[in-house]
Amino acid sequence: MHVFLLYMAKKENSGLSCHRIEALTDGIFAFAMTILVLSINIPLSSSSLEGKSVADTLLMQADKLVNYGMSFLLLAIFWLSHHRVFDHLKFVDSKLIWGNVFLLMFIALMPFSTELANEFPRDSVSDFLFAFNLFIIGLIYYLLWSYATKGRRLVKPSLDQDQINRTKKSLIAICAISVLAMILAFVHPIFSSMVYLLIPIVLWMTKSKNK
Amino acid sequence: MHVFLLYMAKKENSGLSCHRIEALTDGIFAFAMTILVLSINIPLSSSSLEGKSVADTLLMQADKLVNYGMSFLLLAIFWLSHHRVFDHLKFVDSKLIWGNVFLLMFIALMPFSTELANEFPRDSVSDFLFAFNLFIIGLIYYLLWSYATKGRRLVKPSLDQDQINRTKKSLIAICAISVLAMILAFVHPIFSSMVYLLIPIVLWMTKSKNK
Amino acid sequence: MHVFLLYMAKKENSGLSCHRIEALTDGIFAFAMTILVLSINIPLSSSSLEGKSVADTLLMQADKLVNYGMSFLLLAIFWLSHHRVFDHLKFVDSKLIWGNVFLLMFIALMPFSTELANEFPRDSVSDFLFAFNLFIIGLIYYLLWSYATKGRRLVKPSLDQDQINRTKKSLIAICAISVLAMILAFVHPIFSSMVYLLIPIVLWMTKSKNK
Amino acid sequence: MHVFLLYMAKKENSGLSCHRIEALTDGIFAFAMTILVLSINIPLSSSSLEGKSVADTLLMQADKLVNYGMSFLLLAIFWLSHHRVFDHLKFVDSKLIWGNVFLLMFIALMPFSTELANEFPRDSVSDFLFAFNLFIIGLIYYLLWSYATKGRRLVKPSLDQDQINRTKKSLIAICAISVLAMILAFVHPIFSSMVYLLIPIVLWMTKSKNK
Repeated sequence: MHVFLLYMAKKENSGLSCHRIEALTDGIFAFAMTILVLSINIPLSSSSLEGKSVADTLLMQADKLVNYGMSFLLLAIFWLSHHRVFDHLKFVDSKLIWGNVFLLMFIALMPFSTELANEFPRDSVSDFLFAFNLFIIGLIYYLLWSYATKGRRLVKPSLDQDQINRTKKSLIAICAISVLAMILAFVHPIFSSMVYLLIPIVLWMTKSKNK
Repeated sequence: MHVFLLYMAKKENSGLSCHRIEALTDGIFAFAMTILVLSINIPLSSSSLEGKSVADTLLMQADKLVNYGMSFLLLAIFWLSHHRVFDHLKFVDSKLIWGNVFLLMFIALMPFSTELANEFPRDSVSDFLFAFNLFIIGLIYYLLWSYATKGRRLVKPSLDQDQINRTKKSLIAICAISVLAMILAFVHPIFSSMVYLLIPIVLWMTKSKNK
Repeated sequence: MHVFLLYMAKKENSGLSCHRIEALTDGIFAFAMTILVLSINIPLSSSSLEGKSVADTLLMQADKLVNYGMSFLLLAIFWLSHHRVFDHLKFVDSKLIWGNVFLLMFIALMPFSTELANEFPRDSVSDFLFAFNLFIIGLIYYLLWSYATKGRRLVKPSLDQDQINRTKKSLIAICAISVLAMILAFVHPIFSSMVYLLIPIVLWMTKSKNK
Repeated sequence: MHVFLLYMAKKENSGLSCHRIEALTDGIFAFAMTILVLSINIPLSSSSLEGKSVADTLLMQADKLVNYGMSFLLLAIFWLSHHRVFDHLKFVDSKLIWGNVFLLMFIALMPFSTELANEFPRDSVSDFLFAFNLFIIGLIYYLLWSYATKGRRLVKPSLDQDQINRTKKSLIAICAISVLAMILAFVHPIFSSMVYLLIPIVLWMTKSKNK
């Protein structure tokens, strides 16, 4: 019990408890994931159908539903990463909090990037910006994790070095995949969004040993 | 006290605490239920009235308010089911978390399905898609519950077999009602949405003995 | 400590913990209060100004900002009431939960009612519907409180009868004020929204002795 | 342990626990920060491009993305201030709660002010209103803090006078910067938004000694 209270006390060391940071983070993730639904943005008023049936209109714009699903899953992956990173923290300091704020800024921008990709399918610029948004998110995660684990500054002693390295590798992989998508956006826009299918494969590979 | 702490420790066994999964889930449910209000979407600018009074316009589109209420109640039912399922979990594993993510993806899609049903009342395709969305949600719940309770993998030992079976039956019933609504959407669109009135009756029947 | 744990156990008696109901409720209130900002809905595109300056446009539509503030404060009052009611609960049962769901349905409808009042200022129908929404909320609160306190079914024994009665009176007063606003909407639309100023006065009067 | 429970009991002294106020506050901040993304409002439909490329359209309206980032960071700063202020409270009373409600009202208004600034860049009125919104937020914070710390009414005894004064100074500085931005909005609209760069500098100066 004492250990538990000591641990709690430590967590609030910086005057900034993990609890409320997680509450804000969960709120922003939940909201960004739900507001994605507004990015589907299929013209639904009867006048916009122009003689086509509802089924035709939806089928023609099915890629918007696919994009919705993809962005939702990517945000879920990032939310789980956030979860894993913060679960290993002993306490948080000002730098980590500001890193987290910048992370959330680009998380909250995802519905905009998704809408952009939805409005201009197979457009180099919109595909590039979507990939760029992911790259920034991956990069900030990597920097946060490096900062927190350097000399085990902010992480619990129970966390083994092997796991620190595996998390690092998976974050580098997400950055690399985003860069690949950014390049493909200008070369073969059609393949750009397919690259993201590599993310679950990479995550599964870097996490297979761990539980 | 020790028992309590041990139990807590167990819950966080997988490195993924129930607490933050519930926070994200509650956030997405709360937001999906509130953003439904945007799906009412009655043209309200003075210019769109075209000489009709406010009262006439609202009465003519009263079915949109009914749909809002129905979707709100269905989401509330699903939220309560989530609640009941997660209350019986000892701990969560990766598969359950990903199942939960897919569940939330279709929960967050409900405002879109509702808007679709609002824009094209008595249209076979939009009624079918609304029912299909419900069917997917019911199916994922059923799969999650089957997975969690198989050999009491993730549920507490105190949960009796009778309750496991009753929950299963009620989830199968929700799936069956959705399939019925999907069929009726093409046969008698008018009756399609009335089928959902069966859901509270079924829930009351399968839960009457419990509590 | 034991007392505390026993109390916790009691709270979860019905298989439905207060904690997650409060989380959903707080989420819906927070979101309804924030999404109100979308109901301000002042046409802001440069083309809609039609030669008027930004300042003129805003001044002409200042009543929308007043309505935003009023709805925000009313929701805050209802959130505080929710708080006070739930703080006195020993545990929750199914009926209370469903009452709460219906309450939240009309809370989440407030941004719609506010937008309606914003679009048609001094229109009898929109003023009536705004008042009607408030009336339903007040009525559900009254029914919830009556149900929970009858024979002290769900409330803690420490709650004295005097406080139960004062809370009842304040909820009846909110209903009465709403009915008055509903009538005035058809007689003197201009005075209809002024009636709400009575709410803080009544709340202050019924709560003055307590704390 | 006893001290801890006593402290908890004290926090709930007024019948209004800090916990749910923080939940509502975190929810409103999270939503306001995420809904900012809707204020970017770059016309994205293919028809609105009028022959310009996607890249050109985005570059021409890049200031909207800058405004998004700025408003997001300002809200993050205010959220952290809220955090710091509430962490030092022993308990909350009615006056503090109502002050907090008014604070949240202007926090939830930020997406509107940002949209206004986005639609009319370098317009005196919209820049003034954005600065005015910030000023009101800073002022309410200052009043809340003065009220809570006067005779250490609501704050913990462990809080030293030096920290109380430094927090006061930083809040006065935010108000002063907002007033400066309000004046500059009419003199040199271009410089008005640059003034906000002073906020992080001031915050860093008033907090440097602490931690």
